[in-house]
Amino acid sequence: MIESIYQIRPRYDEVDQMGYVYHANHISYCHQARTELLRTYGLNDKVLEANGIMLPVISFDIKYKTPAQYDELLTITTRIKELPKVRFSFEFEIRKEQGQLVSHSHSEVVFVDLKTRKPMLAPGFVMQKLKPIFQESMISTEV
Amino acid sequence: MIESIYQIRPRYDEVDQMGYVYHANHISYCHQARTELLRTYGLNDKVLEANGIMLPVISFDIKYKTPAQYDELLTITTRIKELPKVRFSFEFEIRKEQGQLVSHSHSEVVFVDLKTRKPMLAPGFVMQKLKPIFQESMISTEV
Amino acid sequence: MIESIYQIRPRYDEVDQMGYVYHANHISYCHQARTELLRTYGLNDKVLEANGIMLPVISFDIKYKTPAQYDELLTITTRIKELPKVRFSFEFEIRKEQGQLVSHSHSEVVFVDLKTRKPMLAPGFVMQKLKPIFQESMISTEV
Amino acid sequence: MIESIYQIRPRYDEVDQMGYVYHANHISYCHQARTELLRTYGLNDKVLEANGIMLPVISFDIKYKTPAQYDELLTITTRIKELPKVRFSFEFEIRKEQGQLVSHSHSEVVFVDLKTRKPMLAPGFVMQKLKPIFQESMISTEV
Repeated sequence: MIESIYQIRPRYDEVDQMGYVYHANHISYCHQARTELLRTYGLNDKVLEANGIMLPVISFDIKYKTPAQYDELLTITTRIKELPKVRFSFEFEIRKEQGQLVSHSHSEVVFVDLKTRKPMLAPGFVMQKLKPIFQESMISTEV
Repeated sequence: MIESIYQIRPRYDEVDQMGYVYHANHISYCHQARTELLRTYGLNDKVLEANGIMLPVISFDIKYKTPAQYDELLTITTRIKELPKVRFSFEFEIRKEQGQLVSHSHSEVVFVDLKTRKPMLAPGFVMQKLKPIFQESMISTEV
Repeated sequence: MIESIYQIRPRYDEVDQMGYVYHANHISYCHQARTELLRTYGLNDKVLEANGIMLPVISFDIKYKTPAQYDELLTITTRIKELPKVRFSFEFEIRKEQGQLVSHSHSEVVFVDLKTRKPMLAPGFVMQKLKPIFQESMISTEV
Repeated sequence: MIESIYQIRPRYDEVDQMGYVYHANHISYCHQARTELLRTYGLNDKVLEANGIMLPVISFDIKYKTPAQYDELLTITTRIKELPKVRFSFEFEIRKEQGQLVSHSHSEVVFVDLKTRKPMLAPGFVMQKLKPIFQESMISTEV
């Protein structure tokens, strides 16, 4: 499993008149968390693009537990539980500073060829980056 | 069942650099479609607020089928399949002009007391507006 | 002068926790009003793109007079006071249903070649669409 | 003069299909930079709100110089050149990593009483925070 942490403070324009982070913005926060996770492993969007790949989202499933508020520090934990094949799955948890769960969600993206705009298998350069991390974490789990 | 149609043209700022409507914006379009449906039945947000009610979203589950593009006319069909109790469920389909499915989704909101910020049962004034429509549509189904 | 009217209802995600339309959204509304004006004269963004042109904004100057609120009907008046040369100027007024001024603004865009990404003079096909309207309105002013 | 630095990376949903940060988002970035400057001096929005104050924007004037792109590191310099009276003025410069100017802008906000929603003079607790910094910087200029 790959796990990564990303922190964000909701901006003024992301909060609605109930005083809560507008629900669609959780999805954009999770996207940002995914981007930061992939950046850590040398897979930022520029690298993907240079390799002719894009990663459109094909599903997003989110449960909202507690409203998040303007300017409070939120921590997003992103998890990849399986190496990607055609689909690439991500799990997200957004929590407040004291640990309270704000939302949890699950999203799937696919690898799409930038030119043909057709879906494809997870490309080699992505697998090369991710596989070693999965093997390490399996070993550390065994110990 | 209650069904309603809402049309929207993606704005320039809602489209990403792939040339597609950014995925989180589908959720905001569906919110707008829900608002318009409720307005039709005398339940716009001002009426809800005047009655001390707000409707925060507690879940959203969406599948993306085909990318939507800038400025194309999209039609959102919103369906309420059951009268609300504690939860109030909505189904959404976004389609292109030729009928192609862009995304379909399911969302749940709850009735929350504006003052106490606690969830509550679907209030009487909401049921009075919605019940007759369900009864009509049941009759028309029977015939 | 070319003048055009566009109407919009602020969406829930466009309003901040003061209960006002977030100030940056006025700019996106004005963009939408400009797009609709140009569409009327056969110059929608697809036509521009097909002609290898894009219209990036180079300045925006806005004064906010009265806050706009969620879901209220706003009317945007867009005015082109001069035929474009290198710069293409637009004036916007956003008003409430009773006529109260919400904001007024002035924006300039330039014609940029999609391939070279360099600024250029207003292209012929744009002038052909706009010139007759200016001449008509000059005549009607003279009478 | 008070000067402060804030850094931001444009998110995927903030970039348009030209591949540029959508122009209205500069304004939201500058808002965020202003918030961070005020936070530094003990004047974050919660403190303002607790003191019954809000700061709606009354004008924004921006010139766009070079497009900003997705994911690149932007640095926003915010300057307060005068102590506020009725109006509170901010200047912003957004620059790329190599120093290239992306946009520069000027914005005014006013102090509004949260209850009456009327404008008011810069309140005492704000002046107490800002005055010493201005005096310090005057001294350092004299030397």
